[in-house]
Amino acid sequence: MKALYLKKGEDKRLRVGHLWLFSNEVDTNRSPLKEFQPGECVTVMSSKDMPVGSAYVNPASLISARIYSNEAETPLNADLLRERLGRAMELRDAMFGVPYYRLAFAEGDFLPGLVVDRYNDILVVQISTAGMEAVKDDVVSVLKDLCKPAGILLRNDMSSRDLEGLPRYTETAYGTVPAEIELIENGVQFTAPLTEGQKTGWFYDQRTNRSDFARFCKGKTVLDAFCYAGSFGCNAVKAGASAVTFLDASQTALDYATRNATRNMPEDGCDIDTVLGDALDTLQALKDSGRRFDVICIDPPAFIKRKKAYHDGLAAYQRVNRLAMELVEDGGIVMSCSCSQHLPAEDLNRALLHAANKTGARIQTLIQGHQGPDHPVHPAMPETHYLKSFCVRVLKGR
Amino acid sequence: MKALYLKKGEDKRLRVGHLWLFSNEVDTNRSPLKEFQPGECVTVMSSKDMPVGSAYVNPASLISARIYSNEAETPLNADLLRERLGRAMELRDAMFGVPYYRLAFAEGDFLPGLVVDRYNDILVVQISTAGMEAVKDDVVSVLKDLCKPAGILLRNDMSSRDLEGLPRYTETAYGTVPAEIELIENGVQFTAPLTEGQKTGWFYDQRTNRSDFARFCKGKTVLDAFCYAGSFGCNAVKAGASAVTFLDASQTALDYATRNATRNMPEDGCDIDTVLGDALDTLQALKDSGRRFDVICIDPPAFIKRKKAYHDGLAAYQRVNRLAMELVEDGGIVMSCSCSQHLPAEDLNRALLHAANKTGARIQTLIQGHQGPDHPVHPAMPETHYLKSFCVRVLKGR
Repeated sequence: MKALYLKKGEDKRLRVGHLWLFSNEVDTNRSPLKEFQPGECVTVMSSKDMPVGSAYVNPASLISARIYSNEAETPLNADLLRERLGRAMELRDAMFGVPYYRLAFAEGDFLPGLVVDRYNDILVVQISTAGMEAVKDDVVSVLKDLCKPAGILLRNDMSSRDLEGLPRYTETAYGTVPAEIELIENGVQFTAPLTEGQKTGWFYDQRTNRSDFARFCKGKTVLDAFCYAGSFGCNAVKAGASAVTFLDASQTALDYATRNATRNMPEDGCDIDTVLGDALDTLQALKDSGRRFDVICIDPPAFIKRKKAYHDGLAAYQRVNRLAMELVEDGGIVMSCSCSQHLPAEDLNRALLHAANKTGARIQTLIQGHQGPDHPVHPAMPETHYLKSFCVRVLKGR
Repeated sequence: MKALYLKKGEDKRLRVGHLWLFSNEVDTNRSPLKEFQPGECVTVMSSKDMPVGSAYVNPASLISARIYSNEAETPLNADLLRERLGRAMELRDAMFGVPYYRLAFAEGDFLPGLVVDRYNDILVVQISTAGMEAVKDDVVSVLKDLCKPAGILLRNDMSSRDLEGLPRYTETAYGTVPAEIELIENGVQFTAPLTEGQKTGWFYDQRTNRSDFARFCKGKTVLDAFCYAGSFGCNAVKAGASAVTFLDASQTALDYATRNATRNMPEDGCDIDTVLGDALDTLQALKDSGRRFDVICIDPPAFIKRKKAYHDGLAAYQRVNRLAMELVEDGGIVMSCSCSQHLPAEDLNRALLHAANKTGARIQTLIQGHQGPDHPVHPAMPETHYLKSFCVRVLKGR
């Protein structure tokens, strides 16, 4: 393996544990980036010729290299993938007991560029870097050995691949992959669209927040805004909500939500209704029509996709949370989520406080939530902690 | 009610929701602090004569007044206490279903200066301010109506009362209070010392972190450091740990821990042992003797009691977490907690990362924990968010 030399002092952040090297940190006199192939494995060396670890390079990307091992001269190959994926699976099996989880969460599992979601015998893989793309066949082969799946789908159609100079594609890499997946989460059964669905088909990251949400729903009227396949609302149905309203901009999503709600209906029943439309407009219309709910979930797509969008995105979080504060009954619960990596938890907290103040309500934060444990955070990489939620109680009056 | 006038602009932070007024924010020309009785109720007025809310004053304290209502001319009396405590109880009953919880968490429940812990028919009250002390009889009388308790203990022996010029005392305010309390938390049964115990007898704030901890314990060897009455370790026993070691500096605490472990023992049994001694020394000795554990809980008392102690306290967190990283098996779990209000979560995260790096381990943060939902955080008062934990997986080797 060739060496990639760092400029003076640039090994410090990496010694603490960060896994990314930026192009301006590379000593391009000693190791010109253009001499590396996209995805080539190297040993990262400090300016004092001390090895830092092994990484793969992409000269075309702003992130020039990603470290996958703190040992030198360690190629990214089937052996290393087997060790990493094996340990990742061992953790998930111990935590969940059922084979429905995010099996690998990229840097959080020391597997930069690789995400794998498991739906029992169906695996959905996302590869986002040239380095991981170079070992695609090894990834598929190791996953076959580990999970004995019926099908493996490569869902490599993310926009982030453009930054790595990789083409976007979706491909069945092994076996047969159905158009829909079946899964169990928190004891709730779901069907979700896979080939026509969002991302890998399901958002396992909200698992813990969904079970926290369900604790407040027994006997209550519940609104699941931005519901997709009905994940929060169906947890509420199963927990004994008296009524659940699903809101989404996609009729397909609402059809899945209804189907999933029916499937998890307890004996006592639960009134289900759906509202189709843009969430902000529809929440406003619900409010204007006098509808109110005991418990509300606000789980929007990332309003802040890049740093530049911070200002407008924050305004959107404020607006949607203000509507939630207005739509919730006195003493009711709002679970407010953000998956915007560029929105720190304290800013979401402030948006909620702002929304409460605008409507004259007082709020109490009962639960501060994060992405579930199958999305491990790398403690040296704040970039890996993207999901946050606040479950607040809303008090109106004195 | 008299008026307390603020200096220009000093109402801004209060309009956002903060409940404390500091002495330098008061316009002492218009409303000299020495003209108020300790605990006297006032209407807080902006410099432009706009009412901000109702508060009680203590001229002797750095925190000159604490707001308990955002309405003007609202006395702190039995009516307001009944409304506040009633809503607080309603929330807890809905969340837990059993009468074992923190019933009132001061500012987090808009009841500054008042903490109430409930052990079914025994209530333990802590009053920390002159304003709340002034309505002590109302507090007791409202709690009697609400909970029909057999006994109410005023555990007013905290050092924080000195700052308010209040005497320290413990007093049975109603009925009979036993020397020990019985409680159920996460389905685990406990006995804990009350009159001879720490604070209110139990630390309900760790409820969620304890159940999260227990998820990793089945079939595992577990160390509960700083165990007190064995709260984390007994959750592990009940969850099917193969062995639990309790560590504490108090033999009384270890006796309770053993008793509680025995009581919650599953049919398959669980090996219990205890280690008496200073935690840091004892963890070092365990490490030196070659003992290792699959799952470790580190739940120390606040190492940083005031801002000045930050540096030394942080070093203590680093040392204890380093020992935990050394004592845990490869692939094992460390749950690391801090109840130091002056240690932000990101600093505890850094301490853990530092400890991991010192021992050559890599860590994955699986769960970021906080105080339980019966300790609501006031979103405008970071002071009310004091408990944080990180549940990390420790990987040794490449």
